[in-house]
Amino acid sequence: MNVENVCIPDKLSSVFIIFGATGDLTRRKLMSAFYNLVRDELLPSNFVIIAIGRRNKTTEQYREDVLEGIIKHSRNPVDKKIWQKLAAMIVYYQFDFNDLTGYSALHRFIQNIEKDSCTGGNRVFYLAVAPVFFETIVKGIQKGGLAKTCSGFCRCVIEKPFGKDLKTATKLNESILKVFPEKNIYRIDHYLGKDMIQNIMVLRFCNSVFESIWDNKHIDNIQISLTEQLGIGSRANYYERSGAMRDMFQNHILQILSMVAMEPPSNLNMDSIRNEKQKVLESIEDITSDFLKKNVVFGQYDEGIIKDKKVCGYRQEENVDPLSETETFVALKIHINNFRWAGVPFYIRTGKRLGTTSGEIIVQFKDLPNTLYYKEGREQQPNLLILHIQPNVGVFFQFNTKDFTSHNDIVPAKMDTSSFIPAQGNTPEAYERLIYDILRGDASLFSRWDEVESAWTIADRIIKYRERKKTNFPNYKAGSMGPERAFELIEKDGRKWIDV
Amino acid sequence: MNVENVCIPDKLSSVFIIFGATGDLTRRKLMSAFYNLVRDELLPSNFVIIAIGRRNKTTEQYREDVLEGIIKHSRNPVDKKIWQKLAAMIVYYQFDFNDLTGYSALHRFIQNIEKDSCTGGNRVFYLAVAPVFFETIVKGIQKGGLAKTCSGFCRCVIEKPFGKDLKTATKLNESILKVFPEKNIYRIDHYLGKDMIQNIMVLRFCNSVFESIWDNKHIDNIQISLTEQLGIGSRANYYERSGAMRDMFQNHILQILSMVAMEPPSNLNMDSIRNEKQKVLESIEDITSDFLKKNVVFGQYDEGIIKDKKVCGYRQEENVDPLSETETFVALKIHINNFRWAGVPFYIRTGKRLGTTSGEIIVQFKDLPNTLYYKEGREQQPNLLILHIQPNVGVFFQFNTKDFTSHNDIVPAKMDTSSFIPAQGNTPEAYERLIYDILRGDASLFSRWDEVESAWTIADRIIKYRERKKTNFPNYKAGSMGPERAFELIEKDGRKWIDV
Repeated sequence: MNVENVCIPDKLSSVFIIFGATGDLTRRKLMSAFYNLVRDELLPSNFVIIAIGRRNKTTEQYREDVLEGIIKHSRNPVDKKIWQKLAAMIVYYQFDFNDLTGYSALHRFIQNIEKDSCTGGNRVFYLAVAPVFFETIVKGIQKGGLAKTCSGFCRCVIEKPFGKDLKTATKLNESILKVFPEKNIYRIDHYLGKDMIQNIMVLRFCNSVFESIWDNKHIDNIQISLTEQLGIGSRANYYERSGAMRDMFQNHILQILSMVAMEPPSNLNMDSIRNEKQKVLESIEDITSDFLKKNVVFGQYDEGIIKDKKVCGYRQEENVDPLSETETFVALKIHINNFRWAGVPFYIRTGKRLGTTSGEIIVQFKDLPNTLYYKEGREQQPNLLILHIQPNVGVFFQFNTKDFTSHNDIVPAKMDTSSFIPAQGNTPEAYERLIYDILRGDASLFSRWDEVESAWTIADRIIKYRERKKTNFPNYKAGSMGPERAFELIEKDGRKWIDV
Repeated sequence: MNVENVCIPDKLSSVFIIFGATGDLTRRKLMSAFYNLVRDELLPSNFVIIAIGRRNKTTEQYREDVLEGIIKHSRNPVDKKIWQKLAAMIVYYQFDFNDLTGYSALHRFIQNIEKDSCTGGNRVFYLAVAPVFFETIVKGIQKGGLAKTCSGFCRCVIEKPFGKDLKTATKLNESILKVFPEKNIYRIDHYLGKDMIQNIMVLRFCNSVFESIWDNKHIDNIQISLTEQLGIGSRANYYERSGAMRDMFQNHILQILSMVAMEPPSNLNMDSIRNEKQKVLESIEDITSDFLKKNVVFGQYDEGIIKDKKVCGYRQEENVDPLSETETFVALKIHINNFRWAGVPFYIRTGKRLGTTSGEIIVQFKDLPNTLYYKEGREQQPNLLILHIQPNVGVFFQFNTKDFTSHNDIVPAKMDTSSFIPAQGNTPEAYERLIYDILRGDASLFSRWDEVESAWTIADRIIKYRERKKTNFPNYKAGSMGPERAFELIEKDGRKWIDV
């Protein structure tokens, strides 16, 4: 027996097929993520990236493009050895993925590569394309038999957004399910790749102090706040059809909400975690018309001042309908009707062109009875635990202490581990984590269909209400913290949005 | 009616009579404290300090001595206006307080001053003398009728130590009670003047997070650690008769223990607080001979290295008996047998010539079940809340978080509000607070007789055991953290002394 022919693939070995290899996402994020994976020695030695693009290029030319992109988007100088290692893994394959007849040739190409590469018959199909192409490519994969002949794992990665409502999401899902079983479908939600989002579970389940007070007996309310100073930039085509509800609420916010509120899973397996997250979505109160009237506020930004600069209103943005009814802001108050959370309001707000750019989960603990120090009219400052998601990343904790400079005052002490990590999130770092998880077969940080389905069911009702309701837009100034009614929403409960 | 004759004394107005005015304590602490009180505008305008000393001095000379002392012990330059204001309040009175016949003359002197000074007949007698003189002075006060003619408040301040065992303390107390009722006796424990000791109650009762987990369901153990690098210096005469038990345990440590463990008082009145503290002392487990054998470790330092310098053993210190059996270290494990604390060990250690100088209360919360992240063999780091008493003052909190630099590690995050405040404690600042409380009539930070009595009852049993037991001294090296058995004391329970 010839020893050189013995091939024992690494568990992570695979052919990684990227549709949309010349697109923005691949150039700006995926390839830098692969570079980091090589640098961190997390890729197996038997690994081939088939980069599929419509354009006529040689592999050499494509590699040069990739290098240029990595250099441009990397914060550190590019190491030549690491790059050479990565470059050797990349093969360019020219092909128009709209052409369903071409998938057989792609199939043969993959099989030929597998013969020489000891990748164990493992394949990942990464759809780094605009959502309109998802179904076409999946059909092509089916037609060409690309998924059938995987002799190892066979995974399909779908970028967001997954549908634009329950109906389209269901249709897309059914198409994919014809080719890949649910357990092999990785629906990207890049928020789940953020460090602090993954840290929610660690903070909750690795600290007896937090674990023992994470319920309606100890928590007064939880706020989830994802605010941006940015407007829509050149993305009017996308945003006009999406709005804040589809852009942020249906995916990121409901994912965060379910991680903050879920019961401890029985283990860390992906389905145990996702089962618990799904239970949270199922426990969200009914979205009745009474709920919609009382607990939802939409907003659209008018012109205003951001960082001392005048900016235009949403309706004046390039390619936006001057009578657009799209919401650029939404605030909600939601209850989770289970034993742990009954009675605890979750206040949510997200929007564009607001006064701050920040992502935060704010846990406000219950006040103490007005006794002892608070009997004499001292104002009680709540205990706060704040998870800074972005741009600062870390944990903030506020408690009360004696003011050592005076004789009798009690003041809040603020402890903060957080540090500024710019643009953390849908960065190469987050994608590095997500790609690594895809290779390991850990889908914990991806959305399962029942989650997507529940999220769309909730979001659809709210979006339809916005379409019926016709709020008098614009209703908040750029640079403010949203419409007046978003403040009333929380203040009528005797609470306020917490800014730290 | 002549307006100039109308005298409306401030609530704090008084004649403040200091016995031992030329002694160390007065020169180094009390007068600087008065200076600070004037600076902070906390003294009333009608206030007279009668400084009693044996030496022949004029008031002018005495004032000069005081100024010199303040300049020497003040961290900031002395402000002339503040000093002049204070100087005008000081009167020197030459008198040997051992001469019981002289108290009538002192009485007349006080009454004469009161005629002119609008102090409302309020008197404070401050015994800043060695303990052997306490009873003599109190007898003199009685004989001279000094306490009987107070037409306002009439308070007596006793420096520590209050007795050297239960018997002598009881005798001293009975003598004082003949002259002053309990509510007018202020027994100084300068530890209670420290900011962080006062902060124990604020942290516990102004934070719902801490309040709700301050019990045996959530806390694994509490450590009280008061360690010193210093030896006994020139204080052999005192320390030989005192030892660590009388110097630290009977007073400071039992006071701290009772503040950490007490139930919430019904209000902030001094007796409500002291009632709850007293209940803790009453709930301490019986000091049986079995307890003494298992839960107490004594130590005496041998020569060793401190801060790179060789230092001698205790028995080699100046004026120490070369066969001395005095303990310079004690470690104990104590339970408080009530509903809140049953099952939670309190580990206590204090000593001289140890590796560190620090005062800390360490609350270690219970471990989580070995599930989820800890199922896979990760070592669990406990949640810790540490109150730094000295030399750093502040709060430290340790919790677990994701290590953002790696993919899967969980690391403890350490938050610390504390800052270095040198020599905080029996400083002018602490005395400033204590004197102010004496004038306000707030004895919360002073020991009540039943507390002293309970503390001596506990301490006496332990001290007697040490005398019977004859540990093989010396048994720890200067610069170490105490004898081997002090480590075994906690390690046999599967725990360890926590050093942060």
